[in-house]
Amino acid sequence: MKQAHGLSHKLSKPLFGIKFNEMNRISLFLMVVILPVISQMTLAQKKCPDTQQASETSEKFKIGMAGYTFAKFDIDKTLETMQRMNVHYLCIKDFHLPLNSTDDQIAAFKDKLASKEVTGYAVGPLYMKSETEINRAFEYAKRIGVKLIVGVPNYELLPYVDKKVKEYGFNYAIHLHGPDIKTYPDAEDVWNHVKDLDPRIGMCLDIGHDTRNGKDPVADLQKYQSRVFDIHIKDVTGKTKLGYSLEVGRGIIDIPAFVKMLRQVGYSGVCSLEYEKDMDNPFMGIAESIGYFRGVIRAMK
Amino acid sequence: MKQAHGLSHKLSKPLFGIKFNEMNRISLFLMVVILPVISQMTLAQKKCPDTQQASETSEKFKIGMAGYTFAKFDIDKTLETMQRMNVHYLCIKDFHLPLNSTDDQIAAFKDKLASKEVTGYAVGPLYMKSETEINRAFEYAKRIGVKLIVGVPNYELLPYVDKKVKEYGFNYAIHLHGPDIKTYPDAEDVWNHVKDLDPRIGMCLDIGHDTRNGKDPVADLQKYQSRVFDIHIKDVTGKTKLGYSLEVGRGIIDIPAFVKMLRQVGYSGVCSLEYEKDMDNPFMGIAESIGYFRGVIRAMK
Repeated sequence: MKQAHGLSHKLSKPLFGIKFNEMNRISLFLMVVILPVISQMTLAQKKCPDTQQASETSEKFKIGMAGYTFAKFDIDKTLETMQRMNVHYLCIKDFHLPLNSTDDQIAAFKDKLASKEVTGYAVGPLYMKSETEINRAFEYAKRIGVKLIVGVPNYELLPYVDKKVKEYGFNYAIHLHGPDIKTYPDAEDVWNHVKDLDPRIGMCLDIGHDTRNGKDPVADLQKYQSRVFDIHIKDVTGKTKLGYSLEVGRGIIDIPAFVKMLRQVGYSGVCSLEYEKDMDNPFMGIAESIGYFRGVIRAMK
Repeated sequence: MKQAHGLSHKLSKPLFGIKFNEMNRISLFLMVVILPVISQMTLAQKKCPDTQQASETSEKFKIGMAGYTFAKFDIDKTLETMQRMNVHYLCIKDFHLPLNSTDDQIAAFKDKLASKEVTGYAVGPLYMKSETEINRAFEYAKRIGVKLIVGVPNYELLPYVDKKVKEYGFNYAIHLHGPDIKTYPDAEDVWNHVKDLDPRIGMCLDIGHDTRNGKDPVADLQKYQSRVFDIHIKDVTGKTKLGYSLEVGRGIIDIPAFVKMLRQVGYSGVCSLEYEKDMDNPFMGIAESIGYFRGVIRAMK
């Protein structure tokens, strides 16, 4: 402090051969011209951590996250993770935005997503065991403003789903769930149940569960492409019920072949990562999976 | 509790039409036959998380970690992370195993690595500004039992390094460091300084720093292949000093072209991830980078 005081005292005398007036002008120049340039450079560096767009940017399809991945975390942690991973599409689960949310709560939720550059592109999966539950799901989607519902309706309620799809004009993607649940074990089962219904009723092709039911999700994407409205990306260890879910790239699913087929059929929806291993601490698994998927996409360009 | 007590009291009477003796036999059967089967199944699931070998398993090169990535973490956290990522090769940094470690400390360190299925394949980077520091580094490597030193010797000490390489029979990989440090900015500079020395003196090709010095690491790997003994994998945002390090796949380095060149030249060393972004919390970045690199390798098979 003493030294600084002494320095300011000296400023009226020539310092390093520069007079005070000149010093003043140099300081002014530094403040007005150079400092903003430096801070702009720093800002630019902070604002643009990536110089290369994500691998999928030039693709028709997008990469997203299935809200279920964050079953044990709130929406803030979900969005923080998505921002960290540079992922911008979220399938909204009702544990993050309850079905009975008020309009104000929905508006606040959407604002929060927008502040992290995340779009809620669909809701679900939602199980629907009655007409009342179907009604509630369609109203919920309408109030949020999405036009895609991922749902699991009882088989006998499909005619009622057909009626609602016509009424609301939404797409309805039935989530298939492998050998764990009797309804909709795989893509073929969904197809057989919906093929004569409104073309807006189709499937959320869960590539893990389809594989666990002994099917080939690459072939199924090709076969049923006209009714694939959403996709769950994951990997699994086997072609039976014992096969369990793990990081993309560590299981038996042929991810390069799947990416090739996504392009071949011109899929334009979202491939949402549904990561189900270590749900208490899924962050490294999420990062590895998204990294792997993007590496495959990039290498196959 | 009351209910349970009542139940045990009732066991001598027929329960659901089963007499106590029969119950006893059923219990015994459950314990002896079924329970071990169930616990075996659970164990099998826990023991074998991956059914597919890592993408690089069939390659000549290996994937490893540069110890520097864990500058802010101890060796336990380092090994836990490597195990999580299924990575088995570590370039040992002296902050994890000090240069003056006793033989017992070195043995304990190596046991710890082995218990996590990790091989310490090299030491470094170590800066060497005197013959004494060079002597110490070679003795350190010898005591650990590795035959590769990643080092940065002052230019004028290269003849002494040459002498030591002949004496110990080790490979010596000079770490290049881009425009930040005057010595060894890129692969070409290392090559020019070592090309007339013992062929065991070469480089650790840091693809990030080489890029930041305006060079193409793909072309440099091809040009200088005979003296590339170690590789640091990373990505950077630009071809100048301002370019900074980030997740593999998010920068400007052409990773698929690099993987292709690794194969073309038959590189048989380690590609070690040196991740330098968010060093206080590098885990998601490490996972994304390794995932991306493996995705590229897999897609290009």
